[in-house]
Amino acid sequence: MTAPRRTGRRPGDSGAREAILREARQSFGSAGFSGTTIRGVARAAGVDPALVHHYFGTKDELFAASLELPFDPSVVVPALLAEGLDGLGERVVRTFLGAWDATPGQGPLLALLRSAVSDERAAQSLREFVTRVVLVPLARAAGPDGAELRASLAASQVVGLAVARYVVRLEPLASASADELAPLIGPTLDRYLGAGPGDSSGAPRH
Amino acid sequence: MTAPRRTGRRPGDSGAREAILREARQSFGSAGFSGTTIRGVARAAGVDPALVHHYFGTKDELFAASLELPFDPSVVVPALLAEGLDGLGERVVRTFLGAWDATPGQGPLLALLRSAVSDERAAQSLREFVTRVVLVPLARAAGPDGAELRASLAASQVVGLAVARYVVRLEPLASASADELAPLIGPTLDRYLGAGPGDSSGAPRH
Repeated sequence: MTAPRRTGRRPGDSGAREAILREARQSFGSAGFSGTTIRGVARAAGVDPALVHHYFGTKDELFAASLELPFDPSVVVPALLAEGLDGLGERVVRTFLGAWDATPGQGPLLALLRSAVSDERAAQSLREFVTRVVLVPLARAAGPDGAELRASLAASQVVGLAVARYVVRLEPLASASADELAPLIGPTLDRYLGAGPGDSSGAPRH
Repeated sequence: MTAPRRTGRRPGDSGAREAILREARQSFGSAGFSGTTIRGVARAAGVDPALVHHYFGTKDELFAASLELPFDPSVVVPALLAEGLDGLGERVVRTFLGAWDATPGQGPLLALLRSAVSDERAAQSLREFVTRVVLVPLARAAGPDGAELRASLAASQVVGLAVARYVVRLEPLASASADELAPLIGPTLDRYLGAGPGDSSGAPRH
């Protein structure tokens, strides 16, 4: 355990990077996403706020890093949309499964889910991240009306996929490959996000 | 707290009923669904196994009761299918939401989810109940091929709906009525279960 210092550390100091991540996880878990600030994390880690930005960018990106998501939402969301709305749901499924399958034990994700079932702040962090950072921008791109409801429906499937695959380990879903699951679950996300072919209203279709 | 007795109690003794439920929750949580027997629960509750059957019927029904599900799968599953496959998904959503919304605080469901994220036995209970008792029979009714995969896909949406609505409380999904959600989420279950109109193969459609 590194003692906090009062002044900023040099970029490249991996101890500082780890300290920032540790304090960020602590803060997101106890104070929630809204209650966490770059400044507060920097203070707790004993570094300058500029170093937090240097390593992790925005608060969204710091949160993604604290979950050990091997993708950066500020890069992935535009990339998902750059290919158009066609097949968006499949690409979203592949992105999440690619990230989670690559994380041994899905540790931070499971830790957050575990916290979320017993702790309102952790639930709030999960809520804000899944919807605001990833799914609302996708739903908005598909149409302006009711984007929040459409994003929350999509989130229910994404979160359910994570719980079923990694927590409850429902077979055969838990052992199926991303290539098998993406064409099965992708159209659900397309329908919820309003991104499916043949629909331009932005509303989920029946 | 009632002290266990060695012999069976009279039907109508509400202390016995509560003791059975308490021991059943304890056993399903610690020994899992497979590791729980009516006989073992009866012994722990200090009653005769016949009394457990008298109050709760089968082990499936005892498990449903221990989750305070206000529906009995052995009644509900045939009832859902009696109306045919058309609109099955919507009826499944209404059945689960009706049951969970009616349970103040969704206590036992949340307790099981909370256990499932940290305890393999509880995860196994949830797994076996959701799929084997409720969703596999529905998927089989829609077609014999790949019923387990189709049931586990449907379970991912049902579990995700529960987590998003009651645990993470994603808005506006958390506050939406069952009447609003059933037409939105029902078609997803129809597609997974293979029960949608215009499909008789039993395979999920794209």
